[in-house]
Amino acid sequence: MTEQTTLDLDEIFKALAHPVRRDMLYWLKDPERFFVEQEHQSFEIGVCAGKFDQRTGLSQSTVSAHLATLQRAGLVTSRKVGQWNFFKRNEETIEAFVRHLGEAL
Amino acid sequence: MTEQTTLDLDEIFKALAHPVRRDMLYWLKDPERFFVEQEHQSFEIGVCAGKFDQRTGLSQSTVSAHLATLQRAGLVTSRKVGQWNFFKRNEETIEAFVRHLGEAL
Repeated sequence: MTEQTTLDLDEIFKALAHPVRRDMLYWLKDPERFFVEQEHQSFEIGVCAGKFDQRTGLSQSTVSAHLATLQRAGLVTSRKVGQWNFFKRNEETIEAFVRHLGEAL
Repeated sequence: MTEQTTLDLDEIFKALAHPVRRDMLYWLKDPERFFVEQEHQSFEIGVCAGKFDQRTGLSQSTVSAHLATLQRAGLVTSRKVGQWNFFKRNEETIEAFVRHLGEAL
């Protein structure tokens, strides 16, 4: 199997092995649909970590750990604005991963 | 995310999170190329577990555990002939998984 150096397949598969993380990635596809409105910020810069706490009903630390796992795998990117962290899908990595799987599996 | 009931996504992603298991699945695509000839049996019935020991250089118990993980995920099927276990790719599940990812991710 030829693995592109930009894809950390071990980390990506591990990240996707949890249903909550797959849901998070899915919700990020369409923030307007899956998250209630953000005050002061549009979804352009991403979805604030706190929105995932509300959506999942999980604790802040659990949500942080899930988001960190997604980020370590390169599936999301984050941006800090003030004290808040905003998350977006990393479409480039996601597309490369899906393409790779179609060829390699 | 709508998940087809026939796919255990947690188990599939976990199974694919290890490079040796990805390799095993890849080798099973083309046994004649990746494994030395099997005595008495053609590759039609699958690849004997012992062939993976030789190919990976891993212990029999480690190889068995990897193959069991792939089988639990539905990515391979096995068939016992005498005292030997033979493994094949489960193309139906693999194809459904790749198709699902293309849509859901």
